[in-house]
Amino acid sequence: MAKQKKQPRPKAITPKGFRDYFGHEVTERAEMLQTIAGVYHRYGFDALESSAVETVEALGKFLPDVDRPNEGVFAWQEEDESWLALRYDLTAPLARVYAQYRNDLPTPYRRYAMGPVWRNEKPGPGRFRQFYQCDADTVGAPSVAADAEICAMLSDTLEAVGIARGDYVVRVNNRKVLNGVLEAMGVADDGQQAAVLRTIDKFDKVGEAGVRELLGKGRLDASGAYIDGVGLAEEQAEPVIAFLTSKGADAEATLANLRAAVGESAVGAEGVAELEQIAALLAAQGYGPDQIEIDPSVVRGLGYYTGPVFEAELTFEITDEKGRPRQFGSVAGGGRYDDLVKRFTGQAVPATGVSIGVDRLLAALREKGRVQSAERGPVVVTVMDRDRMPEYQTMVAELRQAGIRAEVYLGNPKNFGNQLKYADKRQSPVAVIEGSDEAARGVIQIKDLVLGAQIAENATLEEWKERPSQFEVPRSELVAKVRDILKAQS
Amino acid sequence: MAKQKKQPRPKAITPKGFRDYFGHEVTERAEMLQTIAGVYHRYGFDALESSAVETVEALGKFLPDVDRPNEGVFAWQEEDESWLALRYDLTAPLARVYAQYRNDLPTPYRRYAMGPVWRNEKPGPGRFRQFYQCDADTVGAPSVAADAEICAMLSDTLEAVGIARGDYVVRVNNRKVLNGVLEAMGVADDGQQAAVLRTIDKFDKVGEAGVRELLGKGRLDASGAYIDGVGLAEEQAEPVIAFLTSKGADAEATLANLRAAVGESAVGAEGVAELEQIAALLAAQGYGPDQIEIDPSVVRGLGYYTGPVFEAELTFEITDEKGRPRQFGSVAGGGRYDDLVKRFTGQAVPATGVSIGVDRLLAALREKGRVQSAERGPVVVTVMDRDRMPEYQTMVAELRQAGIRAEVYLGNPKNFGNQLKYADKRQSPVAVIEGSDEAARGVIQIKDLVLGAQIAENATLEEWKERPSQFEVPRSELVAKVRDILKAQS
Repeated sequence: MAKQKKQPRPKAITPKGFRDYFGHEVTERAEMLQTIAGVYHRYGFDALESSAVETVEALGKFLPDVDRPNEGVFAWQEEDESWLALRYDLTAPLARVYAQYRNDLPTPYRRYAMGPVWRNEKPGPGRFRQFYQCDADTVGAPSVAADAEICAMLSDTLEAVGIARGDYVVRVNNRKVLNGVLEAMGVADDGQQAAVLRTIDKFDKVGEAGVRELLGKGRLDASGAYIDGVGLAEEQAEPVIAFLTSKGADAEATLANLRAAVGESAVGAEGVAELEQIAALLAAQGYGPDQIEIDPSVVRGLGYYTGPVFEAELTFEITDEKGRPRQFGSVAGGGRYDDLVKRFTGQAVPATGVSIGVDRLLAALREKGRVQSAERGPVVVTVMDRDRMPEYQTMVAELRQAGIRAEVYLGNPKNFGNQLKYADKRQSPVAVIEGSDEAARGVIQIKDLVLGAQIAENATLEEWKERPSQFEVPRSELVAKVRDILKAQS
Repeated sequence: MAKQKKQPRPKAITPKGFRDYFGHEVTERAEMLQTIAGVYHRYGFDALESSAVETVEALGKFLPDVDRPNEGVFAWQEEDESWLALRYDLTAPLARVYAQYRNDLPTPYRRYAMGPVWRNEKPGPGRFRQFYQCDADTVGAPSVAADAEICAMLSDTLEAVGIARGDYVVRVNNRKVLNGVLEAMGVADDGQQAAVLRTIDKFDKVGEAGVRELLGKGRLDASGAYIDGVGLAEEQAEPVIAFLTSKGADAEATLANLRAAVGESAVGAEGVAELEQIAALLAAQGYGPDQIEIDPSVVRGLGYYTGPVFEAELTFEITDEKGRPRQFGSVAGGGRYDDLVKRFTGQAVPATGVSIGVDRLLAALREKGRVQSAERGPVVVTVMDRDRMPEYQTMVAELRQAGIRAEVYLGNPKNFGNQLKYADKRQSPVAVIEGSDEAARGVIQIKDLVLGAQIAENATLEEWKERPSQFEVPRSELVAKVRDILKAQS
């Protein structure tokens, strides 16, 4: 009855940078989230679901490389002139929730959260503006036992969802060690510190000599462009080089190298001692270096980490779009951020946690063939005679009551070929047929569509005769026969 | 390292009209959604998850009582000047998805979707601006068998989540019957039609005489204000009255009364015939009037319904905030909307579906005591001796490997009383204690916190002596003893 103003037809498109998920893409993710939640829950973590919407001021500006206001988030102004925005991660909302409810929550507060987050960034291939995160954090626990627990839980989680031991490694580093290195170098200026950190991140690409050049006068890069250096003296580079090459044969060796790299720095020594404790706690629980290891190359991008940092990397190779082999790379990361709640309350509250990139992890499992790439469709009861619809509905009701996924064909039943095409598109395992002739005789036809397809593809005439894919059974045997066929298919 | 500009502390508040969900509030909803998805899936419906964000033009303007642009939705402008918005339901995105992918999707397309939707409305008590919906729709099936299937599935779903037969009813009506009544009345003007529908909605309050007045000259309401009438002639009211009082002892009687009410109207007769078919299909599958019934009083608010409409109502009484008994009311609704996809493609595509208000349904189950109102916390291993942390971590690892939820206390361990208070706040069933004395003797203390609390509350000294709530066992019996205690508690 409501009047609709005449207007041009809207375009049926997913907004740029967003996507839709169909069928098994949705159910597989749901199953993975459930498995992860199961591990988190067993570790004593409680669920938290905050709203997708936060005030802009509560979210703060913690996205990397974002300077302009509201850049990076989707925000809008309310009628009362306040600004609201979609959350860009699950950590900022946790800090808000903890500050808000701290008198009611247990201390320490272990919580997990899972759900979509939104980033107002330029979309790229495989890079979307809405994606899932699955986080676990402990707020109010200053002890590095909390960090070790997160690492152990991350390892357990990856194995629980189907990443085999040897196919991943959780790498642990400590921000304080980095700060110790900067202190040992005698670099106190914020800008210079940031430049040194950026240089460390390039070690993989440019090697030791390249890092020395970049910390000093600069260097010509592969394209022939000259990159300005940080302008440090030659000997100032030594602690960085020692740090970058500190990874030893085992945790003990690595820790000894790190101790040398931080020299006299107190904060550096504290960082190394923390790593030592984490290593001891994890070793006591039986986690080996094939699961969790100390690795000084981990430099997490976000500015708010203050202590241990972790990263879970998948170590197997995949083939990229151009057919080249490459490592799958990072699927989770986190660390200690003791200052995030302080923004709200003025009091420092220790916190540590991890965030799993659910969609990347799911992509990795698909790569390894650990999740099925398509799901079996429902049994389709075809419609030969529109007037017998109540009987067809009764058939599917019987199948469902037996726990079998089933449906009646609800399109135009005139063309029977269309019904079988539909069953094919749905990847139906079985079709049920009952025309008036069958009805009169009290029987039904049951078609094994999987076997039928195999026979159609491969069989000789002999085989085709020997292995019928269609069976006539009494109506009363519907459920039993369908169950037999499904069993034989699986 | 990143510099933070100095700014006033942000307020730690949930934005107005939003809320946070903790612990079992989250897990209970997740379990309910999983149960519902299980039923939908068994009926052959496939999962779909579209993004939370849509273009404003794709969403269209279908919210009731909303005239101003962007009123009712959260919307913002992109850099390219286009407008995006958060979805306000799951039906508008389905229409967009179907129009976009119609060549790849099976026809009919049965899909289910679950997730939050957002409404930019004035929040009120129990009324939030983000809430969950759980929808199932069939697109491309013109047959009322599709509508009957939705009704059957809705009934099955309510029973699957724990609403007992007798505590709910799925009511079915048909928009075409209403249109037939309007035709029989001789009311063709859009404005008059809308006024008649509004009057029908008031039948519950004003009764037959009131409806007659409102359709005619108007009436004085209870507050003494004069409400203008629609201005129809007296005899024009007859079909409406016949319609409103058409509910008979059974479906047959109701259908006969409806047939009389629509008189000569062709569309009305079609509507009654459709209801008749739906009733026959459902009766054939064994659904009784205690589950699904024809009820002419169902008038769904949304403007886009074109055929059968459904509403699931919980029929038991609850006590409202003021202590008065009232019916719980509607938890799900839907119907046939054959014109929604047409907005995009220009071609009418038949569609029908239902949306369950998940949060309301969950509230109803809590009301009935069908979901637990709190969950059991983890076993807490206390910290008597900080240096023994690796051993405590090993204990919880053993418990978790046995499938028992467990954690080490990670706060400051100095004050043992705080550790037990923490265990209490977590609703922990068991605490494990191992000081240096116990460690030397190879034993641990295990405290049954549930029994301990019961004894503290009720027991005499005798009972207290007879039923100890703390047990000393060898370290090797940790898992076995904890398991025994948990079993005895449940």
